[in-house]
Amino acid sequence: MKRMKLFISPLACSMATRTALEEIGRPAEYVQIDHDTRLAPDGAAIHPLGMVPVLHTDEGRVLTENAAILQFVAAGTPLVPDEPWQRTLLHRWLSFIGTELHKAVFIPLLDPKAPDGAKAYARGNAHARLAVANDHLAHREYLLEGYSVADIYLFTVLNWAQATPLCVSDYAGLAAFFERMKARPAVARVLAAEMEAFAVERGPLKSATPSTRADYPRPA
Amino acid sequence: MKRMKLFISPLACSMATRTALEEIGRPAEYVQIDHDTRLAPDGAAIHPLGMVPVLHTDEGRVLTENAAILQFVAAGTPLVPDEPWQRTLLHRWLSFIGTELHKAVFIPLLDPKAPDGAKAYARGNAHARLAVANDHLAHREYLLEGYSVADIYLFTVLNWAQATPLCVSDYAGLAAFFERMKARPAVARVLAAEMEAFAVERGPLKSATPSTRADYPRPA
Repeated sequence: MKRMKLFISPLACSMATRTALEEIGRPAEYVQIDHDTRLAPDGAAIHPLGMVPVLHTDEGRVLTENAAILQFVAAGTPLVPDEPWQRTLLHRWLSFIGTELHKAVFIPLLDPKAPDGAKAYARGNAHARLAVANDHLAHREYLLEGYSVADIYLFTVLNWAQATPLCVSDYAGLAAFFERMKARPAVARVLAAEMEAFAVERGPLKSATPSTRADYPRPA
Repeated sequence: MKRMKLFISPLACSMATRTALEEIGRPAEYVQIDHDTRLAPDGAAIHPLGMVPVLHTDEGRVLTENAAILQFVAAGTPLVPDEPWQRTLLHRWLSFIGTELHKAVFIPLLDPKAPDGAKAYARGNAHARLAVANDHLAHREYLLEGYSVADIYLFTVLNWAQATPLCVSDYAGLAAFFERMKARPAVARVLAAEMEAFAVERGPLKSATPSTRADYPRPA
C-alpha cells in the first residue's frame, strides 16, 4: 500500500491537517513545497494555484481544499463527529473559518503582493468576523461539543495574527482558546516543528510592528 | 411541527439553498431580508454579519454558512452523495467555490464599498480560479459524478459575473455548464423568481458596461 503523502508549507494552513494527523496518531509522509516556486522538491507541480495542503491518498487519489482534507484524514475519529447535528455544525465552522477568516481577512493581510486597498478591506472585515468566533467561544472550550478539526483549523488561522496588525489578545474568548490549544501536546509538537521549518526556509517569523498594529481599529 | 424557514436576499447565495429545495421538492418558508438594514421584515436581526442564507430548521435550530445549509437541507438525496469519495469531493468543491470564487473573487467585485485595490486584487485572482473549475468541467457535465449541491452553488456564483467585469462566456466549460444548469426546470424557476424579486427591490440588474469589462485581462 502506498503511504499517504501531504504537501505542506511551514505554518500555512496545511499545518491544520498535520496537527489532525498528529492528534490521531496517523502516520503520513510530509513533503515541503518550495516557498517561491510552489513546486515539490522533485519539480512537480502539485496544485494549479500553488496552494497547500494537497493530499495524495494511500490509493493514489489527489485531494485539495483544507476543509475536505481535514474531514477525510480524520474520518471515523472524534475529531469529525458522527452525530448529525454536530457534523452539520462542523460544516458550518469549517466554512466560516475558510471563507470569512482565512480568505476574507487573513490572506490579503498576509500577502505581500496585495494592494493597500485589499489590505484595508480585509482589515475592515476583521473585527466583526473575529467577534463571531470570539462570542461563540466566550463560554465554551471548543467550537463544537467536543474537540474537532474545526478547532485545529481555527488555531492554524489565528496563529497568523502575529504577522498581521490583528491581535488575538484583544479577544478574550479567542485568546483563551488559543492558549488552550497550545497546551495540547500534539498541537505544541506540530507548531514547534513548523516554526523551526519556517525559520530555516524564510528566517525568523516577522511580527507586525507596534506602528502597523496601532492603525488597526481595536475592538471597543 | 414548525416549518423550515430560510432567510434570503434575491440572487444572493441563498439562491443556492432555494434551488436545492426546489430540485428535491422540499417545502420551506422563504423570508426576504431588507437589502439595506439586513433585518427580517419583523425587524429581527438574523445574522451577526447580516448575511444570508440563514436557516431556521423544523426543530427551531439556527444554521448559517451556505456549504453547511446545502448539505443539511439535501441530506439523504442524490444532491448530497453518500459514497465516501464522492462526499469528500463534494466537500472539496463546496470549499473551493466558497473560498476561492465566492469570497476571493466575487465579493470584492460586487461590493460597492470595496476599495479599488480590493477589486483589483480580486480581479487578479479571478482567471486562475475560474480556470480550475473550467478545466474540470471541460469534459464532464457536473462537478461530481452526478448532479449535486456543488453544481447549484457554482451556478449561483457564476450568475453574479454579469454584474462584474468577468465573462463566463470566456470559459467554454463554464459557459456550457451555465447553460446546462439554466435548462433545468427547477433552476430556471428559482432564477426567474429571484430576478423578479431583485428587480422589485433594487430595479433591473445592472450589467457591467463594455468599458468596465474591457480592462479585465481576458484569458488567452
